[in-house]
Amino acid sequence: MRTRREMLVSLSAASALAATGWSGSLVAMSGTPATVNRQIVLASRPKGKPTLDNFRLEKSAIKPPATGELLLKTRYLSLDPYMRGRMTAGPSYAQNVALNDVMLGGTVSEVLESKHPDFAAGDIVLSNSGWQEYETTSAQGIRKLDPRISRLSYGLGVLGMPGLTAYVGLLDIGEPKPGETVVLAASTGAVGSVVGQIAKLKGCRVVGIAGAKEKCEYAVSELGYDACVSHYDDDMASQLKAACPDGIDVYFENVGGSSWEAVMPLLNTHARVPVCGLIAHYNQTELPPGPDRMSVLQSVILTKRIKMQGFIISDHADRIPEFVTNVSTWLQQGKIKYKEDVVNGLENAPDAFLGLFSGANFGKLVVKVS
Amino acid sequence: MRTRREMLVSLSAASALAATGWSGSLVAMSGTPATVNRQIVLASRPKGKPTLDNFRLEKSAIKPPATGELLLKTRYLSLDPYMRGRMTAGPSYAQNVALNDVMLGGTVSEVLESKHPDFAAGDIVLSNSGWQEYETTSAQGIRKLDPRISRLSYGLGVLGMPGLTAYVGLLDIGEPKPGETVVLAASTGAVGSVVGQIAKLKGCRVVGIAGAKEKCEYAVSELGYDACVSHYDDDMASQLKAACPDGIDVYFENVGGSSWEAVMPLLNTHARVPVCGLIAHYNQTELPPGPDRMSVLQSVILTKRIKMQGFIISDHADRIPEFVTNVSTWLQQGKIKYKEDVVNGLENAPDAFLGLFSGANFGKLVVKVS
Repeated sequence: MRTRREMLVSLSAASALAATGWSGSLVAMSGTPATVNRQIVLASRPKGKPTLDNFRLEKSAIKPPATGELLLKTRYLSLDPYMRGRMTAGPSYAQNVALNDVMLGGTVSEVLESKHPDFAAGDIVLSNSGWQEYETTSAQGIRKLDPRISRLSYGLGVLGMPGLTAYVGLLDIGEPKPGETVVLAASTGAVGSVVGQIAKLKGCRVVGIAGAKEKCEYAVSELGYDACVSHYDDDMASQLKAACPDGIDVYFENVGGSSWEAVMPLLNTHARVPVCGLIAHYNQTELPPGPDRMSVLQSVILTKRIKMQGFIISDHADRIPEFVTNVSTWLQQGKIKYKEDVVNGLENAPDAFLGLFSGANFGKLVVKVS
Repeated sequence: MRTRREMLVSLSAASALAATGWSGSLVAMSGTPATVNRQIVLASRPKGKPTLDNFRLEKSAIKPPATGELLLKTRYLSLDPYMRGRMTAGPSYAQNVALNDVMLGGTVSEVLESKHPDFAAGDIVLSNSGWQEYETTSAQGIRKLDPRISRLSYGLGVLGMPGLTAYVGLLDIGEPKPGETVVLAASTGAVGSVVGQIAKLKGCRVVGIAGAKEKCEYAVSELGYDACVSHYDDDMASQLKAACPDGIDVYFENVGGSSWEAVMPLLNTHARVPVCGLIAHYNQTELPPGPDRMSVLQSVILTKRIKMQGFIISDHADRIPEFVTNVSTWLQQGKIKYKEDVVNGLENAPDAFLGLFSGANFGKLVVKVS
């Protein structure tokens, strides 16, 4: 699914800006201002795995901004597993999407028109405009993209929310020490690939869990992991055990399911388990059959003196400055590699999103909207 | 089960020392040195709840100390829930008791004879002599009782391992803030009563969970908790909910079972759960029937961004000096009250120990051995 564009774009700021066509307002360039906004809305709530029927493409008129508002044009839309939770009606830790509302999501957007003193037409911003081509919005929560971010879509990935998730989860909660063993699942994904590479920079042994053999090979040959096992293999648990001869000190949990089952017996005393996602369970409609092992997990936490801690990245905005400084430096130095899976066109977002749950993407999934 | 002795003993150091008869070597006082050691050994491993058959009283000769060794006479033996785990053959986080070996346990002992330069006859020490009247041992792990500990048995309780467990678990892992709600189970026990009273000193709302009504009343009227609910009541969960109108910020877990089930839905975002024991599960021979809710616990940790952390107190010896200073001051000032359940005679230890699992004790359970 990667595009020719992705492979052509270089990492330097100047060429990245040129390649993504950022040279001022697109309204001004086209001569005829767009009037129609295409949106993807939540048509129905999924039962278990989402399907294309849960989404609907709609058109609406673009609303001119009132005083204090901005008109934004979406350049890139991020697609992430957490969105599955927001499609559900039940209580969650964040606002759910109402039926017939635009699907939510982080975007890199361009200011087409500003009625707010802090922004001007042409500004590139981080927004939560969701799955649509245009948004008319107050300036609340809109941030200008850090000028050190050399490629716009990186603001949704390695230098955005997923990168910060990796940074805070691994360093602040996981507290890896040199020589320790760090295990992570979804290890070539937007978050995992950053976790693993930072853990290598911190002197750890890093063992990944991924699906396709191609991803496992990439994790070792390109990302520099010491080993990577595939959860497609029936003997994944014994492969993981062999790859972790000294046990596991940090498990960065963003999957759950069979990865967690393989990890749990290998956790060392005083292991740390930052929990940032459980994608294996998001489409679960009922719990697995018994026995009830809740107390098993409690016992493991007790007897191994484990710290297991959930987090969401919106609680950690104070870490952004240090994060951008360090990770952009590592990127420039080639110490962190980053892979994107760029899908062209808003209309392809639903299908690409569904692929997240079968591991169809390879690298951070973003939609190039315009 | 409390003794007249307990009620007579005052808190001041001088009278406590007098009342407990500490005025030199008992061997010297009696005139005829004892030659027989009575011991309680592990006769068989329990299946589920332990029974008296699992223990056997034996006699052996007292061995004179070799160079570098000490001969200790047990004054007080601590009985604690963790001992149940050591009676099991399976792997645990600490050494298990071998069949026909003396049951392990912390003691306050008196040095009868010393062949080690750091100790002299008459010294009162903290030891792990186990369920026996005498022990001949190397000096490894033997510590002189802090002279600020006014009553010998307190070295096994409020100023010993259980008190340190409460101190470290609540303050270092639970991190309570003024105005937060702290919930604890086994709330009049050796650990719980200290947790709750320190939480009150830190400005928290404190809600206890206990069994007998007498204990619940004591928790409120004597220990100063804001409320205490009984796990004997069928509607304990709704009582707990009513007692925690602002949810739960810290749950000090030393029980599991129905207490945890009632607490889990009430946990607030960013709640902390120090896990120091799971007594409700120690006698479990098989897991409860399904569905398997392990992933439910993982989801709660994720969505509420909870920190759940197991600990055992032997990892935290560095906290002893601050702990003894603060807690002994609070005891002297009457800010912490402490209740003991003193059983007389080593031969009564097994029965008293079994009572721990039905809540028969009221206060910290210790055996006055001599």
